[in-house]
Amino acid sequence: MTPPPPDASDRPIAALLAPDLLVLLDDSPGSVAEETEEMHPRDLASVVEAIPENRVAELLAALSAERAAQVLEYMDEELRTQILETMSAGDAAELLVEMKPDDRADVLDELTEEAAEGILRAIPIEDRLITERLRAYEPDSAGGLMTTDFVSVPQTITVDDALRRVRALAREGRKETLYVLYVTDEAGRLSGVISLRELLAAPEGTPMEDVAWEEVMSVVATADRSEVARITAEYDLIAVPVVDHDRRLLGLVTVDDVIDAIEEEQTEDIQKMGGMEALDEPYTTIGFWRMLQKRSGWLAALFIGEMFTATAMAGYEDEIKRATVLALFVPLIISSGGNSGSQATSLIIRAMALREVTLRDWWRVAMRELPAGITLGIILGIIGIARILIWETLGFTEYGEHYVLVALVVGISLVGVVTFGSLTGSMLPFLLRRLGFDPASASAPFVATLVDVTGIIIYFSVAAVLLSGTLL
Amino acid sequence: MTPPPPDASDRPIAALLAPDLLVLLDDSPGSVAEETEEMHPRDLASVVEAIPENRVAELLAALSAERAAQVLEYMDEELRTQILETMSAGDAAELLVEMKPDDRADVLDELTEEAAEGILRAIPIEDRLITERLRAYEPDSAGGLMTTDFVSVPQTITVDDALRRVRALAREGRKETLYVLYVTDEAGRLSGVISLRELLAAPEGTPMEDVAWEEVMSVVATADRSEVARITAEYDLIAVPVVDHDRRLLGLVTVDDVIDAIEEEQTEDIQKMGGMEALDEPYTTIGFWRMLQKRSGWLAALFIGEMFTATAMAGYEDEIKRATVLALFVPLIISSGGNSGSQATSLIIRAMALREVTLRDWWRVAMRELPAGITLGIILGIIGIARILIWETLGFTEYGEHYVLVALVVGISLVGVVTFGSLTGSMLPFLLRRLGFDPASASAPFVATLVDVTGIIIYFSVAAVLLSGTLL
Repeated sequence: MTPPPPDASDRPIAALLAPDLLVLLDDSPGSVAEETEEMHPRDLASVVEAIPENRVAELLAALSAERAAQVLEYMDEELRTQILETMSAGDAAELLVEMKPDDRADVLDELTEEAAEGILRAIPIEDRLITERLRAYEPDSAGGLMTTDFVSVPQTITVDDALRRVRALAREGRKETLYVLYVTDEAGRLSGVISLRELLAAPEGTPMEDVAWEEVMSVVATADRSEVARITAEYDLIAVPVVDHDRRLLGLVTVDDVIDAIEEEQTEDIQKMGGMEALDEPYTTIGFWRMLQKRSGWLAALFIGEMFTATAMAGYEDEIKRATVLALFVPLIISSGGNSGSQATSLIIRAMALREVTLRDWWRVAMRELPAGITLGIILGIIGIARILIWETLGFTEYGEHYVLVALVVGISLVGVVTFGSLTGSMLPFLLRRLGFDPASASAPFVATLVDVTGIIIYFSVAAVLLSGTLL
Repeated sequence: MTPPPPDASDRPIAALLAPDLLVLLDDSPGSVAEETEEMHPRDLASVVEAIPENRVAELLAALSAERAAQVLEYMDEELRTQILETMSAGDAAELLVEMKPDDRADVLDELTEEAAEGILRAIPIEDRLITERLRAYEPDSAGGLMTTDFVSVPQTITVDDALRRVRALAREGRKETLYVLYVTDEAGRLSGVISLRELLAAPEGTPMEDVAWEEVMSVVATADRSEVARITAEYDLIAVPVVDHDRRLLGLVTVDDVIDAIEEEQTEDIQKMGGMEALDEPYTTIGFWRMLQKRSGWLAALFIGEMFTATAMAGYEDEIKRATVLALFVPLIISSGGNSGSQATSLIIRAMALREVTLRDWWRVAMRELPAGITLGIILGIIGIARILIWETLGFTEYGEHYVLVALVVGISLVGVVTFGSLTGSMLPFLLRRLGFDPASASAPFVATLVDVTGIIIYFSVAAVLLSGTLL
């Protein structure tokens, strides 16, 4: 196989636009802002990523600070960090004040502590305090995801006052999410919510407390991002308010950040389920050694666990010597346990993530996986027996004079191994969660490792019973 | 282990509220609507799910049709289907006309064709035609997800006319998404987009074409839901317009439906990666035999694939007879190939889903996985050699006089097997996608099955070279 030829139709448009943008930057930097005005900041970010690194700061300077900030928000993390660290703290601060507070906090988190501190000192005090407060939250918590730009009004003002406030904010060009208004009581506690569409439709002059919904879905700042995602998905929200333990409004998480959080969570889960640590960076950009570090730990741990198969096999060395035919089916049998375990563990990990099953359902799940495992084991057992009988009859392989007994040993072992695999695979996520670990760590390789040793023991035990007096 | 005792604190609040609601329904059905007025329809749906099935229709009838429709939208699919099928077509139609068109189409899709047809005939002609059109789209396509309730205005009208239109729609209590306005040219083609916040801030009297953004992200109706999800996530949208091939606006997909689609897609991917067909139903509600059907197909296919290990082992039966010690390490060696393959395949499947890698990156990925596999293989090889030398030295196991050679065979084989596993695991998703299959089907068990046979061949080939003249 040779590497594929570069395919123009597949190449991102950004790379094609980048040279044009560079020419424009050379010829008439003043017109760059105007010429790119209609581009979505995300697309402009792609173009910026395609031009030489040493021109990026110059290009950003040719845009308005607000526009440059938007482009930065969509840019590749690594490049953004580089650009900001080469800028003066003052220039960087000018861009960062234009960002939404949550994005600003995230961007600063990527920089070295010195660079971040320098930029923070150049940011006006009010914005700086907000940013520092946001940075104090865990990145994966509701507090770490929230923005402090939101609209809240006292419950005593009227619908028209509230509407005037919204329009004023919109005219000022502020960054707040305007489509949901939060209503607070005299103590500043979250007491209601109303969507902008409901506000537009509400009779003017009515106090807000009469039109707002009293039941407000909210999360505390320390809540995990998976909780934020669950509430957003279940209640079809476009923003989730974040409160402190006195129900005072601290900020809100907007739906676009929820989607990003869902995707990151899913990436982590899938990587853990593949039997490694979550990379926390894209596969395409993570450094080679960092990636190896994330993979080698689990791989070595699984390998050490799997060494017990060598110990178990050594325990049956005499049996293998006397009946070598038994060794032939070891990989077939243990892999079947691993495969059925992989199915069960994937089902349960996902059902847990979707809250379809909780810890207390373990018994109900076990009572479902037991018959499922037995049935699946019988299916494989029948196929296995048929395979051996047919191969022997057609003369493909010689399994010796006791081939019917060998076939029976394989068939019966499969029932045991697949049943054990399904049970282990389904129970491991419960056990991990109970012990405070992420159930997604119950990877297919982890389950297979647990099941392989047992598979060997089941197989040779069945053989000992059925073949005693003949082969053994 | 005994089943856990019922835990009141863990029990959903819905189950506790249900008896109260039943008493209210008996005593004063007229007040049910008022008493539950402040509840989010999603929570009311949970309560409804907790009351006896034969009272559900009665309860829904005690609510306004609009409210009952909202509750139905959030209710468990199976129960909803049952309730609607026991209602008269007329009553069901009255609820369904209150639903958003996309939800209505989805709900009808769950019913038997006769029930759906009956209800459709009782729906006013205009809504019926829209519903039938929506039902014609693939459920997983943009058309299948979209609603036809959206606001579009001609590009020639002014900002204040557009705002008046939005307020009128809000006052009428229509279900449209009002936070994004689409602008169309004289031919009815999508020519611009403006958010409600931008519209509120725009100077009155300006024509819409001057204030709207010309670059509009959109999808065609046949686009897959993963494409809709990607655009929503990348551009932070709260709705994605769906167009036909002439860029005429057909509808829009709102962000709440995008989140549901992302979660469904994710569930399917994880289940496929676990080595089975996607269930398409929650684990907790799918029928036992249907679940077995989804699991047994792949399990049997993998088993049949794994049978080649028995064939491969049979090819080395003589070697095993002469050097039984070789058989002891077979499970350890082949599982390491499977585990490294599982890591690689999970990484690539996810990177593909996130569009970090596309088909044409296969060569770049292979050139990254090759050194990664070699390095990981060397790590495991060293651990493996150390294990054998230590066990022999400490007298835990007797590997015979040639134990150093055996250790070398194991170590060198591990490098080969892990490298082959990483390469196979990373290339299988590319191959599947190239052939038009879902890359997520490159499950850990699938990769393990491919790698196991090769692992056996690599191991015994290395043994043949290194042990020739001594053990073999």
